[in-house]
Amino acid sequence: MKTAIRFLLALCLTAPLRAQSLRNEILLPQIGEFLTLKCDFHMHTVFSDGSVWPTVRVDEAWSEGLDVISITDHLEYTPNKDWVPVNHEAPFEIARVHAAQRGILLVKGTEITKSMPPGHFNALFIQQATPLFQEDPVQALREARKQGAFVIWNHPGWKAQSPDGPVWMDAHQKLFEEGLFQGIEVSNHNDWYPTVLGWARDKNLTVFSNSDMHGPVSQFLEEFKVARRPMTLVFAAQRTTESVHEALRQKRTIGWFRDNLFGSSALLEAFFAASVKATALHADDKTRWITVTNHSDVACSLDFTGTAGPRHLPPRQSLRLSLPPDRQHVDVTVTNMLIQADQPLTTRLAF
Amino acid sequence: MKTAIRFLLALCLTAPLRAQSLRNEILLPQIGEFLTLKCDFHMHTVFSDGSVWPTVRVDEAWSEGLDVISITDHLEYTPNKDWVPVNHEAPFEIARVHAAQRGILLVKGTEITKSMPPGHFNALFIQQATPLFQEDPVQALREARKQGAFVIWNHPGWKAQSPDGPVWMDAHQKLFEEGLFQGIEVSNHNDWYPTVLGWARDKNLTVFSNSDMHGPVSQFLEEFKVARRPMTLVFAAQRTTESVHEALRQKRTIGWFRDNLFGSSALLEAFFAASVKATALHADDKTRWITVTNHSDVACSLDFTGTAGPRHLPPRQSLRLSLPPDRQHVDVTVTNMLIQADQPLTTRLAF
Amino acid sequence: MKTAIRFLLALCLTAPLRAQSLRNEILLPQIGEFLTLKCDFHMHTVFSDGSVWPTVRVDEAWSEGLDVISITDHLEYTPNKDWVPVNHEAPFEIARVHAAQRGILLVKGTEITKSMPPGHFNALFIQQATPLFQEDPVQALREARKQGAFVIWNHPGWKAQSPDGPVWMDAHQKLFEEGLFQGIEVSNHNDWYPTVLGWARDKNLTVFSNSDMHGPVSQFLEEFKVARRPMTLVFAAQRTTESVHEALRQKRTIGWFRDNLFGSSALLEAFFAASVKATALHADDKTRWITVTNHSDVACSLDFTGTAGPRHLPPRQSLRLSLPPDRQHVDVTVTNMLIQADQPLTTRLAF
Amino acid sequence: MKTAIRFLLALCLTAPLRAQSLRNEILLPQIGEFLTLKCDFHMHTVFSDGSVWPTVRVDEAWSEGLDVISITDHLEYTPNKDWVPVNHEAPFEIARVHAAQRGILLVKGTEITKSMPPGHFNALFIQQATPLFQEDPVQALREARKQGAFVIWNHPGWKAQSPDGPVWMDAHQKLFEEGLFQGIEVSNHNDWYPTVLGWARDKNLTVFSNSDMHGPVSQFLEEFKVARRPMTLVFAAQRTTESVHEALRQKRTIGWFRDNLFGSSALLEAFFAASVKATALHADDKTRWITVTNHSDVACSLDFTGTAGPRHLPPRQSLRLSLPPDRQHVDVTVTNMLIQADQPLTTRLAF
Repeated sequence: MKTAIRFLLALCLTAPLRAQSLRNEILLPQIGEFLTLKCDFHMHTVFSDGSVWPTVRVDEAWSEGLDVISITDHLEYTPNKDWVPVNHEAPFEIARVHAAQRGILLVKGTEITKSMPPGHFNALFIQQATPLFQEDPVQALREARKQGAFVIWNHPGWKAQSPDGPVWMDAHQKLFEEGLFQGIEVSNHNDWYPTVLGWARDKNLTVFSNSDMHGPVSQFLEEFKVARRPMTLVFAAQRTTESVHEALRQKRTIGWFRDNLFGSSALLEAFFAASVKATALHADDKTRWITVTNHSDVACSLDFTGTAGPRHLPPRQSLRLSLPPDRQHVDVTVTNMLIQADQPLTTRLAF
Repeated sequence: MKTAIRFLLALCLTAPLRAQSLRNEILLPQIGEFLTLKCDFHMHTVFSDGSVWPTVRVDEAWSEGLDVISITDHLEYTPNKDWVPVNHEAPFEIARVHAAQRGILLVKGTEITKSMPPGHFNALFIQQATPLFQEDPVQALREARKQGAFVIWNHPGWKAQSPDGPVWMDAHQKLFEEGLFQGIEVSNHNDWYPTVLGWARDKNLTVFSNSDMHGPVSQFLEEFKVARRPMTLVFAAQRTTESVHEALRQKRTIGWFRDNLFGSSALLEAFFAASVKATALHADDKTRWITVTNHSDVACSLDFTGTAGPRHLPPRQSLRLSLPPDRQHVDVTVTNMLIQADQPLTTRLAF
Repeated sequence: MKTAIRFLLALCLTAPLRAQSLRNEILLPQIGEFLTLKCDFHMHTVFSDGSVWPTVRVDEAWSEGLDVISITDHLEYTPNKDWVPVNHEAPFEIARVHAAQRGILLVKGTEITKSMPPGHFNALFIQQATPLFQEDPVQALREARKQGAFVIWNHPGWKAQSPDGPVWMDAHQKLFEEGLFQGIEVSNHNDWYPTVLGWARDKNLTVFSNSDMHGPVSQFLEEFKVARRPMTLVFAAQRTTESVHEALRQKRTIGWFRDNLFGSSALLEAFFAASVKATALHADDKTRWITVTNHSDVACSLDFTGTAGPRHLPPRQSLRLSLPPDRQHVDVTVTNMLIQADQPLTTRLAF
Repeated sequence: MKTAIRFLLALCLTAPLRAQSLRNEILLPQIGEFLTLKCDFHMHTVFSDGSVWPTVRVDEAWSEGLDVISITDHLEYTPNKDWVPVNHEAPFEIARVHAAQRGILLVKGTEITKSMPPGHFNALFIQQATPLFQEDPVQALREARKQGAFVIWNHPGWKAQSPDGPVWMDAHQKLFEEGLFQGIEVSNHNDWYPTVLGWARDKNLTVFSNSDMHGPVSQFLEEFKVARRPMTLVFAAQRTTESVHEALRQKRTIGWFRDNLFGSSALLEAFFAASVKATALHADDKTRWITVTNHSDVACSLDFTGTAGPRHLPPRQSLRLSLPPDRQHVDVTVTNMLIQADQPLTTRLAF
């Protein structure tokens, strides 16, 4: 009897469980009527210099709570070609149905990979990647435009190509004037480029934060001790690739990199207002106690200048402030939400 | 220079940070117009046989995301009295302002502590605890009623008093007929009593799940390897003690014990419908892919009988189902939401 | 000034950190003079039906604390062949130097993949995989023997091939009698086969616990909610492939699957004795207090029959027991260390 | 049948488990023949201005892996006295047997609490606390000496008493010359005082890192986002209070504060050498690969000047270095092990 129970217990402890792939949902508020889609428009597979099969990129996106990805293997750099024949259409082909069955929007893309200038560019929403493989970068980008692509300048401050930081060269000015790119990466993998935020504002470019993942995402998270890959928040009218494309053209994006967000003043202000709320708790003669709650999954670094000083507010947590009893609001600088590198969001919390 | 940087670094690593007490917000949906308040109506301090000061109970409630607590020290059992003189009003007196400053609703209570029958009872919403200290339990409960208290029968299946499980004795029947108690603990600390769910339905008693905490809550969580203390969800019109009292009288409660909820069919169904949503992802000739998302912090054990079988759905995660292409809904048994011990909630998810 | 500090802070928060791949060391005791090597002899890459590049298998092994791996892509099943030309030597070739630079011992292997009988077999320590690709399983295994391989019968209870559990067929008896295999998987991926423990004892086969990984390991860990992949502990005289080969031939292995270990009585007893120690804390007239400490990373399920009952002892933690004051030892059944499916290790802790 | 299984499952999910208090063992190497005892010589309870019962301090120490504690309630500051009558012997009396049953060495102590100068002092290893309650600090400390106490100057840089940092005043010089204190806190709670490390060296004082805990330790850990309370490592010949006392008199201590250790060059060097080991992995013409493993629970910040630069090495993890092929050792600065504030440990790792 005793043995039987032990046996049952042993079985129970080790019984085969059914594998179950679960998706971690990221809690981010909508802004007005727009859906907040979590996107990554830059990543690689074994078909260029990455180390995973295209379906892995979809599985990762599903389990990490992303909505939209683009696999953007290099056209010009294919170091695995001794083992894996070059095929620029393969990654999309292999991942397409896998993505649809998981509700992941898969944007067809590729990376035009040139030395600097002009450097690397992702062409998104393309029909065919192979025609973009051209020696002249201008010809490649004109082909992208012909296909109706949305084009972004990748990692303009990548040390290997721009050791002194991002430089806007004549070559870039010409591409820009011809309308051959519309977006730019302000952050990529584990780097970010403060200068580029200024360019985006001055040149009216859409800002991006992409992972440029080569290995498994899990390895990236462990090596850099971060909770999430970089991603681009896209505020889209609907959950379709067309809506995403439209939102990019309208510059409705915020970059999310480590615990920082960057974007336009209007978008960041709306995002913060929808995320963080203040409530009055209790007042007596000397003090009014306030609670400030972060309803989103973006940690906030708050600076209550002149009152409570700097405070950290992690996701789905609240902090308490003590204010003078007659106060109806408190001003706050959100030091991790950047309109420009030296200009954090400043706003007001009423209660 | 090198040394200076090292020194700065060392300082930086060890510089005094400002202590900051943060509150973990628990994500639970409202039900209709009612707020979902997280409550614990049973706990102790050094003023009876607990091991913490009353303010600790408030700090714990704040940081764990509770809204309402009642400190219910024993009237008849005060083992610390050689060191701490007996004072039944002290815990409320000491904790009152501390609670108000944190927005924690503090309900004045006490535990009437008799041998079985009738056992232990918590009198909540009292004015004074001392007058309830009476030899005769009936007199004590009549005094509670005189003060307008809401009274609950505590841990009716506590092994030390009821080694054979909960028994509804004549003594309880008399108290019940005289209207001397209105609620009952279906779970307490680390025990739950399936039978008592039936009593609650048959006798129209309000169900409770309380922690009966004696030591620090952190010690309880570590010893029992659980993420949260037991709590009672109260659906109240407003965040006031009066509203809580009214909700208890109207039996608008759900008990939350480990990963299980128990309560009336109507409340559980509304709670589940507000927590878990299904969405169609993709369909082809043979399959319709569905995603099911848990928007609350209560893990759900789902049984999709006849389709996907048993599946576990943790907080803020999604699972995927494959169904026949023409399906518009799926039936599900929620095995961790119990109307009665042998009657889990069964409901339908449409998409 | 204020702005400057803010700018510095923002930079500081987001400054590029150097990626650093760290290895989690698993704490397991040596047994006598033998090193305890953590091994996984079964896994796949894009060169058969896996979804990662061979170097990923090395990176995973390094960061998870493994010492020895073998990539064992299928000879007969290569579903990626439209994109990746069949090449049975490629995985080893690609991973070899990457492994050496990380101190991971890479054993050249391949999986002979036949329908049942006789099913799938891993040939380890081979020189060339391609010559093993033969229609007749016997010919394939003879070629393996010719190369000096160590051969294991994989997942004998795999549902797709053995729906009624593991069956030792005539075909297996013939292979066994000809000495064509020397080891057997008692656990594979997320399954284990209690019957096979009996076969291993009766036929004198070396026991294995392998991961049979196809996707990234991180995905496996998340889907099955486990802390580690299955692995085979090999007790080797030195950290060399030759020593590993010798230890396999001498049957010096323990399988580690979820929280269970299985192996011979002698190895399990030695392993437990080196992992778990008891110390006397304090004694008075009535009681002797004992602490029992688990110095390894294998959680232990202990049953102190007749004294403290069942207790769980996680890695690097201690539990307390109260015993009669004159006791010098306590008997314990280690319910998660299995000599046979119905025979857990029983041993004695002295203090 | 189905219902029965469901019922069983529901029971299973919620069945009462036996509470089990487990102890987390901290992995720290011995130094030569000395045991490494984890100690905290400064903490409070409800008997002065703390918020927990004395037994809670023992339970916390047990579960956090400490070996030695001293409860040091204030003699002169007892804000709970309206509810808890002043009794300076009570904390030790209440906690004594509780500690013995858990193998925690409980050192009788008290805090002499004066305004600055001379500030606060802990008298450890006393017989009676009450006789130390004297208006004149010198008289109090002489009484301590009469009882054979070991005395430490607490938080010499506490902002409330020393707003401009620690100052060695005439009063301290007199006490020191009379031999009335022998140790000093270099860190306390969440502060540390770089200057004091210099005093300790110059005056030959024993260094301490104590928690000065007032609330539950769990609250401290959460508020300051740290993994452990501050503690003093004492290198004692045996696990007895006498041995601890002897080790303090011999100045065999290292302070552990956040991720930093501070102490004498000899002790830090021995501790590091016993914790961190280097092994050669692989060499080719151009590179020798080395692995460096941290066998302790103290995270190390390493600076491989001139080779690999700064690297972080968490507990029980390994990092890899690439060095020139002929190297037999590597020099390293351990930036989190401080001999003086501006003098980290520098040492050599051979392989």
